[in-house]
Amino acid sequence: MNLRRRASCRIMSLDLAAIRAAHIRIAPHVHRTPVLTSATLDALCGAQLFFKCENFQKIGAFKARGAANAVFSLTDTEAKAGVATHSSGNHAAALARAARLRGIPAHIVMPLNAPKAKVESVRRQGGIIVMCEPTLAARESTCARVMAETGARLVHPYNDYTVMAGQGTATLELLEQAPDLDLIIAPVGGGGLLSGTAVAAKRVKPGIKVIAAEPADADDAARSFAAGKLIPLEKTSTIADGLRTSVGEKNFPLIRENVDAVVTVSEESIVAAMRRLWEVLKIVVEPSGAVPYAAIMENKIDLRRKRVGLIISGGNVDLDALPWMKK
Amino acid sequence: MNLRRRASCRIMSLDLAAIRAAHIRIAPHVHRTPVLTSATLDALCGAQLFFKCENFQKIGAFKARGAANAVFSLTDTEAKAGVATHSSGNHAAALARAARLRGIPAHIVMPLNAPKAKVESVRRQGGIIVMCEPTLAARESTCARVMAETGARLVHPYNDYTVMAGQGTATLELLEQAPDLDLIIAPVGGGGLLSGTAVAAKRVKPGIKVIAAEPADADDAARSFAAGKLIPLEKTSTIADGLRTSVGEKNFPLIRENVDAVVTVSEESIVAAMRRLWEVLKIVVEPSGAVPYAAIMENKIDLRRKRVGLIISGGNVDLDALPWMKK
Repeated sequence: MNLRRRASCRIMSLDLAAIRAAHIRIAPHVHRTPVLTSATLDALCGAQLFFKCENFQKIGAFKARGAANAVFSLTDTEAKAGVATHSSGNHAAALARAARLRGIPAHIVMPLNAPKAKVESVRRQGGIIVMCEPTLAARESTCARVMAETGARLVHPYNDYTVMAGQGTATLELLEQAPDLDLIIAPVGGGGLLSGTAVAAKRVKPGIKVIAAEPADADDAARSFAAGKLIPLEKTSTIADGLRTSVGEKNFPLIRENVDAVVTVSEESIVAAMRRLWEVLKIVVEPSGAVPYAAIMENKIDLRRKRVGLIISGGNVDLDALPWMKK
Repeated sequence: MNLRRRASCRIMSLDLAAIRAAHIRIAPHVHRTPVLTSATLDALCGAQLFFKCENFQKIGAFKARGAANAVFSLTDTEAKAGVATHSSGNHAAALARAARLRGIPAHIVMPLNAPKAKVESVRRQGGIIVMCEPTLAARESTCARVMAETGARLVHPYNDYTVMAGQGTATLELLEQAPDLDLIIAPVGGGGLLSGTAVAAKRVKPGIKVIAAEPADADDAARSFAAGKLIPLEKTSTIADGLRTSVGEKNFPLIRENVDAVVTVSEESIVAAMRRLWEVLKIVVEPSGAVPYAAIMENKIDLRRKRVGLIISGGNVDLDALPWMKK
């Protein structure tokens, strides 16, 4: 046994210590994003809203946090052979970026029909792109093959405690920037952001409420939460493309334990919320990032006189295809 | 003489003391806007860029600062009869808002053909709208009549030292948020923002450079600066609608004394810069607010290894009519 080998920091559960350690670890590699407020939006809902702008995060989404924590938690020995994933969204670009910063390879398995912008984004970050057929089976088998051939370690986009710890750091910051929050609303797709948010919030401030918001068109978290067991998503075409995944096995128990409610919103509300945030806050928000504010617009949550944090999860949109242009 | 009457704070010249006093005076009424940075944009130009986001300011533009300073500088006696202006842009909404906060009337003279969104914006802030024919003569005579009838005081959008002092407060903040700047780039239209920026920057940090950026299609500041005398704009249709005015008489001497250079940019660059700021910084910037970054994209300024502040002046755009959609 080599005693000089640094122990891996990858973790087997999620607690506040892990999130605090992640915050210190990733601080040199991510933005401390600002919190925006708006008297106009406050007046419309009778509450005080605090928008944590992860759309301003590196690569345009909170995913930079979890990926950086995963990559920088590896020992040098573990890191050497690189990392791999088969996400085609923001996590892929985030993982490629974190690997580039650490000087290790990132193998990104992407379907042949992935949008060109997303492929370009991964390539710009130095990711090694491995194309495969556009089926989940092909993505998984290709990823397994790449890992077997290269020795790269899988960094799952959400079903991974080290990734969740990284995502929770946004809430640590939010609670420093706006300490008196009564409530935090976060979007839920796979549940990486939500579980990190909920554990961070409840451990730092036990009285706080945490509410998840998701598209009614991809309501597996709401149905699972109500049933008390994981009910995977069948299929969805929600405009909130970041939330099209089912909640992960490791995420669900943390969500059950730490989240107070899951509310769903319509596709129309998501677009209306997105547009209002652009118009009033002057920020570019992707549909997934507008889902928490859509829950407010739908009056799904009792907000009166409360101080409410909202996680704006990302801002990666195609400016040539904005949803209000389609009509 | 009534000795108890508070002296007016409206000022007859612009210096650092006036800008510092303005900063204290308006602090309860405006946002301290964040400064954003981007490794991507830095790598593209070989400099470190610091974006002062006045698009996040109240009413979506820096104009909230100058208008608040003008309104809150009035004595109670002076304020009683209200304020007036004949701007139809961001200044109108900013003045209406400041007057509402002070509880006094704001008479806003607007041409009959003013965009509905701008009229609505003034109305939402509680401004008293006085419509007139869409000529400068009609606007001036209508404004003079309103002032004579009501006793309201004119608050000019830029040719006013108290307004300039308010606009300069953005630079005081920027130099606290990014103290080691070598250079600041601000857009120039009437010159209220530019003169406030330049005086604040040069007095706080004498070695700093201040560069003005303006559309080539509205280049009166560049031509005036080169000629050493005011040369008014003939006509312009620049997309940067906030910069369609000629530099003011009171602004020009301050600009000559405190600005190092005026550079011009093409309409194409303004649109390209706007789009890049939306895509990379994830912020909604109006064309005028993108003009400083357009100067960087055109390589008009030697930036190598410099630390550069840019004033993003505003974010009020019509999301249904974005310039890259027109083609």
